[in-house]
Amino acid sequence: MDPLSLLGIIIAFAAVLGGNWLEGGELGALFNGPALVVVLGGSIGAILLQTPVAVFMRAMRMIRMVLMPPDKPMQPLVKKLVALSQVARREGLLALENAAGREPDIFVRKGLRLLVDGYTAESLRDALELELDSREALDLQAARVFEGMGGYAPTIGIIGAVMGLIQVMQNLADPSKLGSGIAAAFVATIYGVGLANLFLIPLANKLKQHVQHESRFRELAIEGLVAIAVGDNPRQIEGKLMGLLH
Amino acid sequence: MDPLSLLGIIIAFAAVLGGNWLEGGELGALFNGPALVVVLGGSIGAILLQTPVAVFMRAMRMIRMVLMPPDKPMQPLVKKLVALSQVARREGLLALENAAGREPDIFVRKGLRLLVDGYTAESLRDALELELDSREALDLQAARVFEGMGGYAPTIGIIGAVMGLIQVMQNLADPSKLGSGIAAAFVATIYGVGLANLFLIPLANKLKQHVQHESRFRELAIEGLVAIAVGDNPRQIEGKLMGLLH
Amino acid sequence: MDPLSLLGIIIAFAAVLGGNWLEGGELGALFNGPALVVVLGGSIGAILLQTPVAVFMRAMRMIRMVLMPPDKPMQPLVKKLVALSQVARREGLLALENAAGREPDIFVRKGLRLLVDGYTAESLRDALELELDSREALDLQAARVFEGMGGYAPTIGIIGAVMGLIQVMQNLADPSKLGSGIAAAFVATIYGVGLANLFLIPLANKLKQHVQHESRFRELAIEGLVAIAVGDNPRQIEGKLMGLLH
Amino acid sequence: MDPLSLLGIIIAFAAVLGGNWLEGGELGALFNGPALVVVLGGSIGAILLQTPVAVFMRAMRMIRMVLMPPDKPMQPLVKKLVALSQVARREGLLALENAAGREPDIFVRKGLRLLVDGYTAESLRDALELELDSREALDLQAARVFEGMGGYAPTIGIIGAVMGLIQVMQNLADPSKLGSGIAAAFVATIYGVGLANLFLIPLANKLKQHVQHESRFRELAIEGLVAIAVGDNPRQIEGKLMGLLH
Amino acid sequence: MDPLSLLGIIIAFAAVLGGNWLEGGELGALFNGPALVVVLGGSIGAILLQTPVAVFMRAMRMIRMVLMPPDKPMQPLVKKLVALSQVARREGLLALENAAGREPDIFVRKGLRLLVDGYTAESLRDALELELDSREALDLQAARVFEGMGGYAPTIGIIGAVMGLIQVMQNLADPSKLGSGIAAAFVATIYGVGLANLFLIPLANKLKQHVQHESRFRELAIEGLVAIAVGDNPRQIEGKLMGLLH
Repeated sequence: MDPLSLLGIIIAFAAVLGGNWLEGGELGALFNGPALVVVLGGSIGAILLQTPVAVFMRAMRMIRMVLMPPDKPMQPLVKKLVALSQVARREGLLALENAAGREPDIFVRKGLRLLVDGYTAESLRDALELELDSREALDLQAARVFEGMGGYAPTIGIIGAVMGLIQVMQNLADPSKLGSGIAAAFVATIYGVGLANLFLIPLANKLKQHVQHESRFRELAIEGLVAIAVGDNPRQIEGKLMGLLH
Repeated sequence: MDPLSLLGIIIAFAAVLGGNWLEGGELGALFNGPALVVVLGGSIGAILLQTPVAVFMRAMRMIRMVLMPPDKPMQPLVKKLVALSQVARREGLLALENAAGREPDIFVRKGLRLLVDGYTAESLRDALELELDSREALDLQAARVFEGMGGYAPTIGIIGAVMGLIQVMQNLADPSKLGSGIAAAFVATIYGVGLANLFLIPLANKLKQHVQHESRFRELAIEGLVAIAVGDNPRQIEGKLMGLLH
Repeated sequence: MDPLSLLGIIIAFAAVLGGNWLEGGELGALFNGPALVVVLGGSIGAILLQTPVAVFMRAMRMIRMVLMPPDKPMQPLVKKLVALSQVARREGLLALENAAGREPDIFVRKGLRLLVDGYTAESLRDALELELDSREALDLQAARVFEGMGGYAPTIGIIGAVMGLIQVMQNLADPSKLGSGIAAAFVATIYGVGLANLFLIPLANKLKQHVQHESRFRELAIEGLVAIAVGDNPRQIEGKLMGLLH
Repeated sequence: MDPLSLLGIIIAFAAVLGGNWLEGGELGALFNGPALVVVLGGSIGAILLQTPVAVFMRAMRMIRMVLMPPDKPMQPLVKKLVALSQVARREGLLALENAAGREPDIFVRKGLRLLVDGYTAESLRDALELELDSREALDLQAARVFEGMGGYAPTIGIIGAVMGLIQVMQNLADPSKLGSGIAAAFVATIYGVGLANLFLIPLANKLKQHVQHESRFRELAIEGLVAIAVGDNPRQIEGKLMGLLH
Repeated sequence: MDPLSLLGIIIAFAAVLGGNWLEGGELGALFNGPALVVVLGGSIGAILLQTPVAVFMRAMRMIRMVLMPPDKPMQPLVKKLVALSQVARREGLLALENAAGREPDIFVRKGLRLLVDGYTAESLRDALELELDSREALDLQAARVFEGMGGYAPTIGIIGAVMGLIQVMQNLADPSKLGSGIAAAFVATIYGVGLANLFLIPLANKLKQHVQHESRFRELAIEGLVAIAVGDNPRQIEGKLMGLLH
């Protein structure tokens, strides 16, 4: 559970709506159905055209990470790897079979299986790094779906605003409606800029950082597993892995 | 067939036109011949000046990829490579000659031919990676043609809008035409921003992602073919390749 | 103590407020509570949504670096490493144990400990570079928290300004309030642009440069420690390290 | 001869001027001497300050490439290299002396001379890649001169427009001149945006792509020459080089 | 002496002021003390906050490079290195001691000293490349100080303009001052955009290119010195180095 995510959304929207209320603005003036249709529909359309089906699905599945980030603490992993290196030293690599069966993390489990299968240190590193890079590339691509929408929303907000202004301009004869017409047109700008800057772009950046954290977690696992494969002693392994934390 | 591409274009244009209609805007106000001439003509001119002939042709040929993406599923490729490794183990590399003849994918076929020709693992990887990099670079260059147009369209839309405003300003004496004049000028902005953000940039990004998917497909093929060349056993190959999927 | 940081903030705010005063502007016109709520609240909300908890905490801890930068002079480090190489040559690597105990810098101390532990030059370089890269990546990520806020502030300032303009537009009937309404709306723009360009972005850039300086300090330490490990003579080491300074 | 370059310039300017004419604008309104002085002079001044003499000269010499691109077809090069490899196999590397004398391309000629001089495959590759990288870096730097001007032109157009508006504002008392004054001011914007987007930036991009094409041509030559140096058979060389084309 | 730098500044300012004069604008309208205070003070404050002391000092020292670029001609360096290789072949590496004493360029001198000290080709290349990279990184960081100021100036110009407009808006009651008030506000925009685009950014780019030229000069020196260390014959060295020039 990532409390900052929820807090961030609440603070941002409270600030914008609260600031408007403090200035004496009516809340109703900020709601405008057609503007919402243009900005949301346009941004969704653009991102659907932009994104391959598989990437789009992966992005949808990643949304829940914002509130429920993957729980990958680094310290316990170091402890676990050090313990595993002690087992391997005492009882041989085959003794890691049991640990592999109990290991909850899919990546560490795979690494242990490869160790048991007798992979050399080098081919173990190659196989695990290839997998890490491949998964990271796919995840970052999915996170960029939200970044992409965040790029389109403000420009489509401008389309909405300009369409609103065009209408206003064609009815200049009735100045009494001028102000409210322009006001309605401006709402599309707020929707576009707000959707992008208060939701989509921060969301994409948080996802990217979770992806990078998971990669660092996996790099730590790789360093530890490779050190077990070459037969480093547990104290060396602990020193090396602790140096990667801070 | 990529349903998201078509859906994306339909949703985006429906949202923009629908939003305008909901606001009570006339559709006719969004159509303006001269603005279209400026934005389309200017963007096409700029991109023709920018792009070498061969790249431009390649870009045109790639457009159909948006609706009909290359069908390169990863799972069946893994299965095929594992099966080929079993053939190679049982009957030797020369036995892949037949498989090469039946192989529909041009890149995999070439790799099999090189295997049969007795290339070492290292020279096989070199030759295939050189080919992958070279094709990817050309394809990305072609996809960037649409990105380039998407960069020019909004600025040329501004040229159109400012030209329209200049005309309006020179006829300030007749205020009755002021509003509709400004409205017409603004349409060029919508054309430029809309063409770029609802069509060209998403199109370029989808093409780029198809290109990258094809590269990942080819990387998978390279890993599998090289593993066959060094004589890895089929179970190892399957493990390695499955790790690249997710 | 970094005098430029404080001086920079003072000069920037004095220039902006002084310029306003010289033009005969009232200071009061630049203060607007609701605008402050929108810009500050929105920027903080966006950055909280964007940033994982651990990165946010690290960023907060780094703020004091702006006024109190880490004191990592390069010249004395070179002298110290040359002296250590003389000790190592005369009395052997084990004699560095004492020096390690007295060493204030955590990174150099760790390197000395690894030397005493008998790490080879190559594994020493690997371990220390892995640690340097890992710490640098985390620090740069934290510095980018302020850069991120600096990216959101101006766009949220625009949201504040447009919300203000919407209110003004809805009250066009009372032209006497028009000017002061628009003025209040514009203040949000100043807050957003000023917060970003006079505080957040320069702050992020200074932090990044401190991080990079610390990395260069550590690279220098690595070169020196590795040279000690391979047994270079002190004169060679001094020549090599001085070449990295300028 | 690159017909797209000329076509692009013609289409772009025809579209802009034609669009203006279709809207009923007078051509004369788009011509404004002082605006031209500001935009052209300012952009040229900025780029002269930015560019070292040698790079500026190189950029000027590269302009003709836009209409007359270097003629470097890939297919004939492959054929030529395959033929040369047959000569080298039959008659030895010294027999390439003649071919070197007749070779029109300066880079291929140099490579042949190095082959005849008995360079090993590795030192041949090193020497030719160093030369390729060095020439490519200089050419890209020169192409970026036009990109740089394309970056300055629109902002200097804004300076011109704002200067024009300042004048208009100081003469608000005479509303009859207001419109035409604003119109004249806007022309500077069109000049800046148009010069950049319809000429300078596309020009820079075309030059860059010619540079990259020439690099690919040279890479192909390097692969072929190195293959001759290691004594690959002509069929292998053809297969390898054809894989780089598409 | 770099005549383009001075010429560029003169042309740019002549064009802007001349264009204003041609349009019939008064020069006095472009001078505005408070706007200058805001833009200059704000930009300087931001850059002081952003820049560590040592980097700022280095940037100040680099300014004179714009008019007096370091004189590092490539052709004479090639000749000198070829001559040195002849000395080394005839009389041995120790004979370079004298040449080192007379060598004006600090980097070449250091390289010669290392040659005389008996460095191997590989350790010579390592030491010199480390030094080149380190100096280049510091110089580019210093050049980016001006780029940074060029990034802040236009946004701070907007702050100045909006502050001016706020004042104007608060005095809408007196329309006679409206125009000149807006005009004065706009001057801040011109200062910000002009300072950045006609001075700071081109300055930073010229410095960067001088830095890169010096790096290329040093790379040439490294290639030559390493070739002397491995004992290449003078003709080979000349061929290799000439290939790096163009």
